[in-house]
Amino acid sequence: MPACQANGRARVGRQGRARRGMSRRLIGLPELEDLAIGAAVLGTGGGGDPYVGKLWAQGRIHARGPVELIDADDLADDDLVIAAAMMGAPSVIVEKIPNGAELVAAFQAVEQACEARAAAVMCIEAGGINSTIPFALAADLGLPVVDADGMGRAFPEVQMVSFAAYGLPATPMAIADEHGNVTLLRTTSAEWAERLGRALVVAEGGASVLAQYPLRGLDFKRTAIRGTLSLALEIGAGLRGAGRQGNVAIESLTHRLRGAVIFHG
Amino acid sequence: MPACQANGRARVGRQGRARRGMSRRLIGLPELEDLAIGAAVLGTGGGGDPYVGKLWAQGRIHARGPVELIDADDLADDDLVIAAAMMGAPSVIVEKIPNGAELVAAFQAVEQACEARAAAVMCIEAGGINSTIPFALAADLGLPVVDADGMGRAFPEVQMVSFAAYGLPATPMAIADEHGNVTLLRTTSAEWAERLGRALVVAEGGASVLAQYPLRGLDFKRTAIRGTLSLALEIGAGLRGAGRQGNVAIESLTHRLRGAVIFHG
Repeated sequence: MPACQANGRARVGRQGRARRGMSRRLIGLPELEDLAIGAAVLGTGGGGDPYVGKLWAQGRIHARGPVELIDADDLADDDLVIAAAMMGAPSVIVEKIPNGAELVAAFQAVEQACEARAAAVMCIEAGGINSTIPFALAADLGLPVVDADGMGRAFPEVQMVSFAAYGLPATPMAIADEHGNVTLLRTTSAEWAERLGRALVVAEGGASVLAQYPLRGLDFKRTAIRGTLSLALEIGAGLRGAGRQGNVAIESLTHRLRGAVIFHG
Repeated sequence: MPACQANGRARVGRQGRARRGMSRRLIGLPELEDLAIGAAVLGTGGGGDPYVGKLWAQGRIHARGPVELIDADDLADDDLVIAAAMMGAPSVIVEKIPNGAELVAAFQAVEQACEARAAAVMCIEAGGINSTIPFALAADLGLPVVDADGMGRAFPEVQMVSFAAYGLPATPMAIADEHGNVTLLRTTSAEWAERLGRALVVAEGGASVLAQYPLRGLDFKRTAIRGTLSLALEIGAGLRGAGRQGNVAIESLTHRLRGAVIFHG
């Protein structure tokens, strides 16, 4: 198996990424509030409480400044994109807070395995806690986050993303915990990455962070679910605008998501 | 944590190792028989049945020729030595036979993490199945095995070796299975290597192979239990010579191990 399907192709340097579109948008503290609200809706009950991820990202954005949200088309074909996420039980995540360094360690372990620096961070899922955590990492590393993800919702397992459906590998994948342990997995399938990753996360106390699905821009652009973070931002802004007026909130949601009210009760 | 405490120091190339002593000894098929018998005695019931490991090593020695057994003093101070072993339940090992490639994959993953080629293979324990498996790998890679180990007996966990007692790290440690999955662990302690490694092995079906404790010759020579494989060879030869004469076998063992018969029954 090659060291990394994406290796040797990504451009070196955090600042070297070509900007081809005009879709720059900054995610600061107010936008993060909207994103967390919208991600809770898109998660439809899955993906864990975005609150902890929001707090983490708030802290890092407060310290390092806003994070750029870019369009997938802004990526060059040979840019390296890596997903950053938390894996484990949502109930554990609420009490087992990261120390902040482990996600950088996991991300850089995957970069090292790919022998390339990443041009952007991606959310593996647009719902729940993993929609906000990548912004903490992106703030730390000075990288943009791509407005796309692997599902458009929240999912429970590693292989349940569009990338895997297109046959793209989940590994090299790195799992890191708050003690300083870093594990790099190279598996023959995304299902094995799930199985071995889950075993590690359980042994590490029920929740850890990871970096996975190192993809080239070319592959990312043809397989990612696009525009899902800006959708979460819109949903969040709409609900915030509705305040405590439930009927306005419902109207905002059904309008934006092209949904319909089936029953009241 | 550094990439590998032993990195950047080991000499490159399989053939570049200095031979300073005159302690060369070749382990062919007859010697392997003695080693397996002696290792069963030294294992004192632990370490799994040496039979499967013996079969594996027999096959590789038959294909590739005898393996050199060298003295620890034959190692140069900057030589890299890595332990090769099986981890898991002895009852599983008997039915879940390796495909033969996974131990090479694990060993080379640790070499890569240390950015150096190994000069020799070591047994992590002198008892049970892990006294013979390193000879299969050594035959495959054309490397010698060092006449020393981390305990002199068989032990159940990663941290229970002289190297860990001296504070030497168990990682980078790689675990590989017969499916082709390879995981590289960098942990903050040998206890964490045990905990995470055990979780992976269980998820992989109860038994896998690994490479661990990459050590420089200097550290190996001051912390290893010396002469334990030649002791196993002597014990095996003595018992083989005794044939079915139980009293001769007991006499041979008590003489060689400076033991005493406490009771008959």
